[in-house]
Amino acid sequence: MALLIRNADIVNADSRYTADILCEDGVISRIGPGIAAPAGAEVIDASGKFVFPGFIDPHTHIYLPFMGTYSKDDYESGTKAALVGGTTTIFEMVCPSRDMSPADGFATWRAQAEGKACCDYAFHMGVTRFDAESAAQLREIVTREGVTSFKIFLAYKGAFGIDDAELWGTLKLARELGVVVAAHCENETLVAQLQRELLAAGRTGPEAHHDSRPPRVEAEGVHHLMSFAEQTGARTYIVHLSCRDALDEALAARARGVRVSIETLIQYLVLDKTYAELPDFEGAKYVMSPPLRDRSNQEILWSGLASGLVDTLGTDHAPFDFQTQKPMGRDDFTKIPNGIPSIEDRINLLYTHGVRRGRITLQQMVAVASTNAAKIFGLHPRKGVIQPGADADLVIYDPDYRGTLSAKTQTQNVDYNAFEGWAIEGRPSLVTVRGEVAVRDGRFVGTVGRGQLLRRSLDTDA
Amino acid sequence: MALLIRNADIVNADSRYTADILCEDGVISRIGPGIAAPAGAEVIDASGKFVFPGFIDPHTHIYLPFMGTYSKDDYESGTKAALVGGTTTIFEMVCPSRDMSPADGFATWRAQAEGKACCDYAFHMGVTRFDAESAAQLREIVTREGVTSFKIFLAYKGAFGIDDAELWGTLKLARELGVVVAAHCENETLVAQLQRELLAAGRTGPEAHHDSRPPRVEAEGVHHLMSFAEQTGARTYIVHLSCRDALDEALAARARGVRVSIETLIQYLVLDKTYAELPDFEGAKYVMSPPLRDRSNQEILWSGLASGLVDTLGTDHAPFDFQTQKPMGRDDFTKIPNGIPSIEDRINLLYTHGVRRGRITLQQMVAVASTNAAKIFGLHPRKGVIQPGADADLVIYDPDYRGTLSAKTQTQNVDYNAFEGWAIEGRPSLVTVRGEVAVRDGRFVGTVGRGQLLRRSLDTDA
Amino acid sequence: MALLIRNADIVNADSRYTADILCEDGVISRIGPGIAAPAGAEVIDASGKFVFPGFIDPHTHIYLPFMGTYSKDDYESGTKAALVGGTTTIFEMVCPSRDMSPADGFATWRAQAEGKACCDYAFHMGVTRFDAESAAQLREIVTREGVTSFKIFLAYKGAFGIDDAELWGTLKLARELGVVVAAHCENETLVAQLQRELLAAGRTGPEAHHDSRPPRVEAEGVHHLMSFAEQTGARTYIVHLSCRDALDEALAARARGVRVSIETLIQYLVLDKTYAELPDFEGAKYVMSPPLRDRSNQEILWSGLASGLVDTLGTDHAPFDFQTQKPMGRDDFTKIPNGIPSIEDRINLLYTHGVRRGRITLQQMVAVASTNAAKIFGLHPRKGVIQPGADADLVIYDPDYRGTLSAKTQTQNVDYNAFEGWAIEGRPSLVTVRGEVAVRDGRFVGTVGRGQLLRRSLDTDA
Amino acid sequence: MALLIRNADIVNADSRYTADILCEDGVISRIGPGIAAPAGAEVIDASGKFVFPGFIDPHTHIYLPFMGTYSKDDYESGTKAALVGGTTTIFEMVCPSRDMSPADGFATWRAQAEGKACCDYAFHMGVTRFDAESAAQLREIVTREGVTSFKIFLAYKGAFGIDDAELWGTLKLARELGVVVAAHCENETLVAQLQRELLAAGRTGPEAHHDSRPPRVEAEGVHHLMSFAEQTGARTYIVHLSCRDALDEALAARARGVRVSIETLIQYLVLDKTYAELPDFEGAKYVMSPPLRDRSNQEILWSGLASGLVDTLGTDHAPFDFQTQKPMGRDDFTKIPNGIPSIEDRINLLYTHGVRRGRITLQQMVAVASTNAAKIFGLHPRKGVIQPGADADLVIYDPDYRGTLSAKTQTQNVDYNAFEGWAIEGRPSLVTVRGEVAVRDGRFVGTVGRGQLLRRSLDTDA
Repeated sequence: MALLIRNADIVNADSRYTADILCEDGVISRIGPGIAAPAGAEVIDASGKFVFPGFIDPHTHIYLPFMGTYSKDDYESGTKAALVGGTTTIFEMVCPSRDMSPADGFATWRAQAEGKACCDYAFHMGVTRFDAESAAQLREIVTREGVTSFKIFLAYKGAFGIDDAELWGTLKLARELGVVVAAHCENETLVAQLQRELLAAGRTGPEAHHDSRPPRVEAEGVHHLMSFAEQTGARTYIVHLSCRDALDEALAARARGVRVSIETLIQYLVLDKTYAELPDFEGAKYVMSPPLRDRSNQEILWSGLASGLVDTLGTDHAPFDFQTQKPMGRDDFTKIPNGIPSIEDRINLLYTHGVRRGRITLQQMVAVASTNAAKIFGLHPRKGVIQPGADADLVIYDPDYRGTLSAKTQTQNVDYNAFEGWAIEGRPSLVTVRGEVAVRDGRFVGTVGRGQLLRRSLDTDA
Repeated sequence: MALLIRNADIVNADSRYTADILCEDGVISRIGPGIAAPAGAEVIDASGKFVFPGFIDPHTHIYLPFMGTYSKDDYESGTKAALVGGTTTIFEMVCPSRDMSPADGFATWRAQAEGKACCDYAFHMGVTRFDAESAAQLREIVTREGVTSFKIFLAYKGAFGIDDAELWGTLKLARELGVVVAAHCENETLVAQLQRELLAAGRTGPEAHHDSRPPRVEAEGVHHLMSFAEQTGARTYIVHLSCRDALDEALAARARGVRVSIETLIQYLVLDKTYAELPDFEGAKYVMSPPLRDRSNQEILWSGLASGLVDTLGTDHAPFDFQTQKPMGRDDFTKIPNGIPSIEDRINLLYTHGVRRGRITLQQMVAVASTNAAKIFGLHPRKGVIQPGADADLVIYDPDYRGTLSAKTQTQNVDYNAFEGWAIEGRPSLVTVRGEVAVRDGRFVGTVGRGQLLRRSLDTDA
Repeated sequence: MALLIRNADIVNADSRYTADILCEDGVISRIGPGIAAPAGAEVIDASGKFVFPGFIDPHTHIYLPFMGTYSKDDYESGTKAALVGGTTTIFEMVCPSRDMSPADGFATWRAQAEGKACCDYAFHMGVTRFDAESAAQLREIVTREGVTSFKIFLAYKGAFGIDDAELWGTLKLARELGVVVAAHCENETLVAQLQRELLAAGRTGPEAHHDSRPPRVEAEGVHHLMSFAEQTGARTYIVHLSCRDALDEALAARARGVRVSIETLIQYLVLDKTYAELPDFEGAKYVMSPPLRDRSNQEILWSGLASGLVDTLGTDHAPFDFQTQKPMGRDDFTKIPNGIPSIEDRINLLYTHGVRRGRITLQQMVAVASTNAAKIFGLHPRKGVIQPGADADLVIYDPDYRGTLSAKTQTQNVDYNAFEGWAIEGRPSLVTVRGEVAVRDGRFVGTVGRGQLLRRSLDTDA
Repeated sequence: MALLIRNADIVNADSRYTADILCEDGVISRIGPGIAAPAGAEVIDASGKFVFPGFIDPHTHIYLPFMGTYSKDDYESGTKAALVGGTTTIFEMVCPSRDMSPADGFATWRAQAEGKACCDYAFHMGVTRFDAESAAQLREIVTREGVTSFKIFLAYKGAFGIDDAELWGTLKLARELGVVVAAHCENETLVAQLQRELLAAGRTGPEAHHDSRPPRVEAEGVHHLMSFAEQTGARTYIVHLSCRDALDEALAARARGVRVSIETLIQYLVLDKTYAELPDFEGAKYVMSPPLRDRSNQEILWSGLASGLVDTLGTDHAPFDFQTQKPMGRDDFTKIPNGIPSIEDRINLLYTHGVRRGRITLQQMVAVASTNAAKIFGLHPRKGVIQPGADADLVIYDPDYRGTLSAKTQTQNVDYNAFEGWAIEGRPSLVTVRGEVAVRDGRFVGTVGRGQLLRRSLDTDA
C-alpha cells in the first residue's frame, strides 16, 4: 500500500527542504511538490513536524547472555521500543562465547531475531577468538551473509576478549575483506587489577565502578587499537567512547591517517558519574562500561558531535532489571550486570538536550543518529537518507509534544527507566518501516516479524 | 536545450551508482535508468567514464592588484581555464585596498566578472578594514547580494591585513549574520622581521622565501584565529593550510568546539620547498604564501583529505608571468609576486596523484574538490552534488586519457606552467555549465559571459 | 659575627643530609659534622627542624602604581613580611609607564628599595616600550647593573603592554645579551572586548572577572610568546601560569626546543574561582590576573611542580586594601586593583598543602620555591643552595608548629588576608639574611636596610 | 695516595668555577683555591682543560647472552673501554632467562663482574618473569644488595618479555619498595607480525629492520607503560627512546603527573636509518632496537637534552663482531644480534656533536651524561657531581685534542667501530676511579678489579 506524506519538512544530514514524499513498495518512490495520491494511498499531512530518515542505533544488545544472566528484551520488545523512540534500524552484536564457533554464533543470533524483529536489523559479527577455523567461518559470514562489520573486545579477556595476536589477525582479515572493526576499548588487566584493589579496600558498591575503569584505562584501550589499526591498515570504529582522554587519543590517530570512526552514547551526554553514586544501590541502575564520567566530559562530546569529530550516537542498550538482576552485584560491583537501557529514549533525549538546547543542529542530529552509521556500516543510501530509492523508513517528529520518560509508560522490557521523570520536548508521532506505519502517537501498531536482516556493502575505500 | 547523459557512473561524495541524467532548463531534471531522450536533446554516452558534480575552486584570484602589478588572467581566460580543468564554480576574493570602501570594492570586482565569466562564480567579501561605516556596508552586501563569506588577512598588515580589534569586530559581525570568515593565517610581524633579517644576511633569492614564513609562523596565525573564533563563536575557514604544525593547531581547536573548516591547496600536495630552490631564479615560479613546505607535510595533508579532517582543496590561483612579473623580485624575494597558477590543473593533478595513487577515493575527491565547499559556503545542494534540482554543472571524466601539462597547451593566461611536463592520467572529456556544454575534449566551446554571480545562503547552525 | 647551626637537617633541591653549618662574614664558610664554634659565635641547635636555603619569590610587586593607586607595602613592610614567611630574596618588576624612560624607571625603583629593604632583592627590568633609545638604556642597565632579566606584558596594551614589533625587538636584544624575558601572557584585545561585553551585559561584579580572562585567553598569550621566542631564540619565562590550557601550550613549545621556564603562584594551587564569587564584594579580595581558575587545574599544577615541568612558585604579591582600594571597582570589576597578597604566606601554604599532603617532596619544595629561581635568574649558587661559599640565607623550619593565618597577626601591610583562618602546619622558627638573624619565632628582629640589590649573571647557554 | 688537581675548570650540572681539587682516600676531600699538596700527592695541572664528574652510562650490556651468542666484551675489556672514553660508572642489566630465578641471575652477573671490573658498576635487576617466588627474591635483592632499579621488556615476549599481569605486579612491587623501573618499550606482537610480513615479502636484509619496528610501535610501548605507571604510581624510566612519536607520548604522560624519566642514546643523536641501509650487509653493524630512525628525529632529541625533557644519555652497548656474529642474520634480519657498540665513544661524540656544534652546553652535557643518572638511580651525590665527599671519579678533558675513531685503535672488544673514521674534537686526558688514575692520554693505566658493585639508595619521593 502506498503512503503519501504531504508538506514534509525533510531533514537530511546535508539538506533540508519541504516537499511531499511518496512511498511505494517499501521504498521512497518520489519526492517533490504536490504529488498526487495514488489510489488507496494513506495520506498524512506532516505540517508543523519534521520528517527524518529513520534513526539507526549502531550499538544495541537484545539477546545478551552476560555475567550469568540474560538481558530482558527479546527482539519483539526491543525493536518495538526502538520504533516507538524513532529508531528504525538496530545493530546488534553476535556475541559467541569463546567456545562457540562463529557460524554457530551467527545462527544463534539470527534465530533470535527472525520472526520477531519489528524493524530491520544488522549484526556486528563478534570475534571472540581468532584462529584458522574462525577465520574461514568469518570469511563466509561476511561474503555470504553481507555481515560487513566485526566487533571485538579489548576488555573482558578470558570471556569475550581477544589477545594481541588475535587482534592482529582480526584486523588483517578485516582489511583484506573491507570489513569495519568495531571495538570496545579498555585495557583488561588494568580493569581486573583495579577491581581487585577496590574490593580489597572494601569499596564494593556501584560508586566504585568508575574508579575501576578510569578515563586513562579507556584511553589506553583506544591507543592500543589505534596502534594496531595503523600497522594493519584496517578500518576501525570505537564503540561507546565516553571521555576526553579517549577522544584525544582517537583524534590524534585520525590526524596521522589511522582510519577510525567514533561512537558515543546518549548516556554519556546527559548523565554523569554522580548517578552511579546514588545511595541505596540506586547507583546500580547507572552501571555500564565504560562508566559514566565526570560531567566535564559532556561538553567535549557534544561539541564532537557538532563538529563531526564524533561520528555516531548509540545506546549500548542492555536492559537488566533493577529488582532481580542488578542485585547480583549488591556486595560486589564487578558482578552488577552492565547496561543503562536507552533504546527507546535516545532520540527524544538527543532532540531535547541537543537540538533544543542549541548544542547541535537538526541536521547534525540526523547525521549522528542515522546517516553516519548508514555510511560507515554499508547501508547508505538504502538507509540514513530521505531520497528516491531509499527504504521508506521515516520518522515524523512532533516538536510540540511535551512528555515525561518513565518506566511505567515505556515499551522496553525492563523494570526501571534511568531517566525517570525527565521531561522530553518532542516525540515521533509516526514511524514507518519500509512504508508500513509501525508507530502512531507513541504506540506500536506495526507488524511483528516484519524486520529483516540487512545485507550490507563492504568498504571500498581500501 | 535538453541534454541527456546515458550510462553515467555517477560519483557523489556520498553515493555512487549508474544511471541516466537528464538536464533541462539548466538543472538536473531527472536521474534514473533508461530515460527517454526529449525531442532535440543532445545525447551523450558516458560509458567508461565518471560523471562528477562540477568541481568548485574555493580560492582563486582573477582580478588581483598585488605588489604593484596585476595577475594576468581576466574573468574570461580564468574561467575558461577553470572549465577546461573541470571546475565549474570559482570563488574569488573581493580585495579592496584599505582606502577603498567595501561597497566600492564589491562593485569593482563585480564589474570585472560581469559579461566575461564563463562559469558561475561567488565572492568572498574581503574585510581589509573594519569600522562602523565598513560594517554597515558589509551588512548590506551580505544580506542584499547573498555574499555570505568574508575573507581576512592576518598577514599583510598595513596593506590588507587587519589588527586584533578589527578581527574581533569582523568575527562578531559574521557571527551575528551567519557568515563564514575565511582567513589567511600567518603572523605579520614575524614575517616582516624574518624577511628583514634574511635580506640583511644577503639571502635575497626565492629560496629564502620559505624561511621568512616557516611553519610555526603559519601555526601562530592559525592559533590566533582559533582563539578569536572561540571567544566570538564565529564560523571560520582557514585558507591554504600548508603544513602539519598549522593543521595540529586547527584540529586541537576543533576538538574543543571551535567552528573551523580547513582548506589546503593542490600545490602543497604535489610540490615541496625544493622547487623554490631551483637555480637561475626558476624558483620564483614556485613562490607563494604560505610557501611550499618540506615534503614530509604532503602525507599529512593527503591523509587529512582522506579522513575528512581537511575539508576542501583549492588553488589560490594567482598567475604572474615568469618573464615580466616575477622578476620584480629578482634582487629581493619579498618583491616576487606570489602565486603558482593551478586553476586549470587542480582536478587532473588530484585525480592523478590522489585517486590513482590510492591516497584518496573517487568519492573523497568529489567531497574535497566540490561538495564540501558547496556546503560550507551556502551553495549546497544547488552545487556540489548530482541530484534532481541541482544545477546541471557536470564533469564527464575520462580515466583513460593520458597527457602532459604544459604552458604551451594551457588555457590559463600565464607564460609558464609550474607542472611543465608532468603526466596526467585522466581529463574531463565534457563539462557543462548549467546544462550547456562548455568544454569538449579539452577545448572551451561554451558561452563567454554565461557565468552568474551566485547568491548564497547563510549559516543556520548558529 | 659568626653563626653556627648544629644538627641541621639540610634540605637542598638535590641533596639532603645532616651536618653543622658555620656562617661567617655573611656566607656559609663550612658544612660538616661537629664543627667547633668560633669565639663569640651564636650557636643554634636545629634538631628536629629542617634547614632550607632561603626561599626566593621570583614575582612580587612592592612599589606598584596600578590603576590609579599604589599597593600598600613599601620595601620595609614588604621585605619584613617576606622574611617572616621564610623568603630571603625577592624579585620585583621595575615598571615604568610608557612615558618614563628605562633609566628613570630603574632609578625610581632603586630609590624605593635602598635603605629600606630588609632582605636582598633583584629587579626584572620592565620593558614597557621598545625603541632605539630604550634599547640603549636597557643595554646599560643589564651590563652595568647586573639586571639580567626583562619583564613584559602582552596584556595591558596602551598601559604597560608592548606590541608585536616591540616584542620582537625586546626578545632579540635579550637573546643578544643573554637576558631572560619574563612575560605576562594574556591577549589584550580579547580581554578588553570580553570586559566590554560583560559590563554591557550587566555583569559588573568580581565574579565576572574570570570570564573576562578565560583560560584560552591566557593560552593564546602563551602561544604567542612561544612563537616569538622560537623565531628569536630568546630565553623566556612565563609568569603566573594558572591553568592546564596555558601549560599545555608552554610544554608543547618546550618539546620543540623553545627555551621557556614556567612560574605558577601559590594562589592558583590552593584557591579557585569560587572565591571570587563570594557575595558582598568579598570576591574582590580574590581578583588577580590571570584569574583564579576552576579547581580542576590545581592538580595539574601540583603535578607540574612535582615533575619539574613547572619551574618556580611565586606570589605576584600586590597588596591593596579591601576597605579603601578594592572598592574602586565596586561597580565595575575591571577597576578593582588586582592582587592577592601572599608574600608572607607562600612557604607555609606550600609546605602545608604540598609537602604535608604528599603532593610534593621536601626537596621539590626547595627546588620550586628557591633553587630553580636562583638558577634561572643568575643567582645560583650564591642563592638557592646550602653549600660553602653561598650566602648565609637560611631558614630553620619548624614542622611541629601549628598556627592560623590572619590579617590580625600578619606583617604585610594590607587590611585583609586571603587565607583568613586557614591552618598552617609549619613555620620558620629562624631566618637569616647573609648570616644575620632576621626572624625569630615569627617576629622580625633584623636590620632595616640590610638588603642589597643583587647583581646577577647572564645566561651563558646561548 | 692523594691526588691534587690544580686550576680545575670544574663543570658540574649546576655550577662552573675554577678551583683546586684534592682527592684523598678515594673521595674528594677539599675544593678551593690554592690548596697545598699533601706529602706524596700527585699534582696535576688541569689548566686549559675541563674537569667533569666521572660520566655514567646508565645502559650497557657486558655479559649478554643474546640470540644464541654472547656479546664480546667482558667486564675487563668493557670497563677499560668505558674509562678510556671518560665513563667511570656503568649500569648493566642482570638479564636472567625466564627459567632462571632472580637470585641466580643476580649471582651470575655479579660473578661476571667481580675481580674484573675496572670502574664502579651497578645493576638494573631484570624482571623477566613475575610471580610470588620472584617477588620474594626481588625484594631481597633490593633491600639486601642495594639494587634499587628493575629492568623490564615490553618487547621480546616469550624470551625476556613480561605480560600485562606481570607488568602490574612488577610496578606495584617497585612502588612499594621505592624502586625505579626501567623499561624497553615496543609492542611485542606488532614487531613479531611485521617481521613475519617483511620476511614473507622477501625483505630479509638489515635495511628491513627499521620497518619491523616503526616509530609508532615504540610509541605504543611507551603509551602502554605510561598507562600502567599511572595506575600503579610507580616511578619509571624509558630506556633508549629513539623518536619524536615516543617522546610525545612520554611527555604527555609526564604532564598529567606520571613519574617517568627518559633516556636516549648517543647513536640516535648522530646516526640515522640510512646507515642500516648500507650495502653488502654493512647495514648489520647498525642494527639495534629500537632501530636507528629518520634523521628528522635527531633535532628533537638534541633539543630534549637541552631543555631537560630528556634526562639521560646511554649507549645500550652490546658488542657483536661483524665478521662472525652479525652474519647469523645474513639471510634473516631478525637473527642479527642487536647492538651498536659505543661505550667508549659516547662522551667524545656528545662533546663533538653536542657541545661543539652548539646544541647543548657543557653543563647540560654533564647533566645528561652523568648527574641525572646519578640522581635517578640513587647514586647522587656520591657520583655525578664534583663536591667534597663525593667519590673522586674525575675526568680531565682536553678540548684541544683532535683525533679519529677507529676499530684499530679502540679498547672495546669488537671487530668494528660504527663511527669508523669520524673526527672527534676532544678527549679525556686523565680519568680517575675513586682517586686512582685509571687513564692517561687515552690508555688504561689503572687496576683491573678495582671496580665495586654500588649499593644505591631508594626513591624517597613516594
